[in-house]
Amino acid sequence: MQKHYTLDDILAMERFFRRDFMNTISGYRSCHLLGTMSYKKVPNLGLFNSVTHIGATPPHLGFIMRPLTVPRQTYHNIKAQGYFTLNQITKDMMHQAHQASAKYEVDQSEFEAVGLKPQYTDLHPAPYVTESPIKLGLELAEEHHIKANGAIFVIGKIVEVMVDEKLVSEDGHILLEEAGILSVAGLDSYYQPALIDRLDYPRP
Amino acid sequence: MQKHYTLDDILAMERFFRRDFMNTISGYRSCHLLGTMSYKKVPNLGLFNSVTHIGATPPHLGFIMRPLTVPRQTYHNIKAQGYFTLNQITKDMMHQAHQASAKYEVDQSEFEAVGLKPQYTDLHPAPYVTESPIKLGLELAEEHHIKANGAIFVIGKIVEVMVDEKLVSEDGHILLEEAGILSVAGLDSYYQPALIDRLDYPRP
Repeated sequence: MQKHYTLDDILAMERFFRRDFMNTISGYRSCHLLGTMSYKKVPNLGLFNSVTHIGATPPHLGFIMRPLTVPRQTYHNIKAQGYFTLNQITKDMMHQAHQASAKYEVDQSEFEAVGLKPQYTDLHPAPYVTESPIKLGLELAEEHHIKANGAIFVIGKIVEVMVDEKLVSEDGHILLEEAGILSVAGLDSYYQPALIDRLDYPRP
Repeated sequence: MQKHYTLDDILAMERFFRRDFMNTISGYRSCHLLGTMSYKKVPNLGLFNSVTHIGATPPHLGFIMRPLTVPRQTYHNIKAQGYFTLNQITKDMMHQAHQASAKYEVDQSEFEAVGLKPQYTDLHPAPYVTESPIKLGLELAEEHHIKANGAIFVIGKIVEVMVDEKLVSEDGHILLEEAGILSVAGLDSYYQPALIDRLDYPRP
């Protein structure tokens, strides 16, 4: 039996019910630890599940930053330094990654708090997560203020990629399942995807 | 062994290798059939893998429309009618959904071409996909032109939701795995996710 909800029904839902309903109804998402460096040289991590492919040439990704109604360390650091990293999550890192989304003090590094190891390159100051098999370094490119709710769509240009070489197939596909990469639904439900099939390019 | 790519390395990749590399490296995505109605009353479907949660209150989702370097029926219809639908994909619909992304003529309905059934409500003209267990109706809210590559970030306000009642848990979570909802990586690799765990709200 199909249940029908109007906008009024959704707005009348209990607050946490609506949050979980709306956060899961759009389906499976990617899950990344986003690394930034603070002015005081504290490496910061945040957990993001809204990373979106913008284009391959030149390579850009975007993500949603929630409204700036409270201090947002990640946003502050990206604006101040101009760089951030995205590090995909495996099953082995699941609990540490989830814990990194707790509200730690500004001067406490989530790396230390959850037990992950920062990794640096010469190209920019933002920290990577050593334990992640797929690490992306991005330069802030542009941002769009969303009128509907005050959120910000932040877009970065990929300037660096580090990936286990066995995960790069001959035709360029990244072998996510072999890497044990997770997907997330809503804010707390972690999934392990299994490949069903890779389909041919469709023609009418 | 970790492989290292700079931006120059990525830009020097063979075109299709780079497309697949960049489309898979950001991880798992949702997969939706996007329904619109044309001026000539032809119900249109397109396949999108960039739907992103913007916020729950009021409920908004966004997706990436590729640059308007060729005619884009979906974009044209959304601009003309002001409404679109998002319909999640199950394993049973996988081949039909993938085929809906083929380049059909403007006056041919993808519903007919791939064998899916349109469903309508009184609220707006855009067609839903009857076979989908999670159907969302959206009103065009705003759009953001992405300078990096000319893509458009289209944002809609959810005005209607239809979902199998057995998929709505007591606390509001939508039970994606019970619905057989798929995830996609890149443009052609379909995955069936399995729940590992739902974690508690993290505190420092």
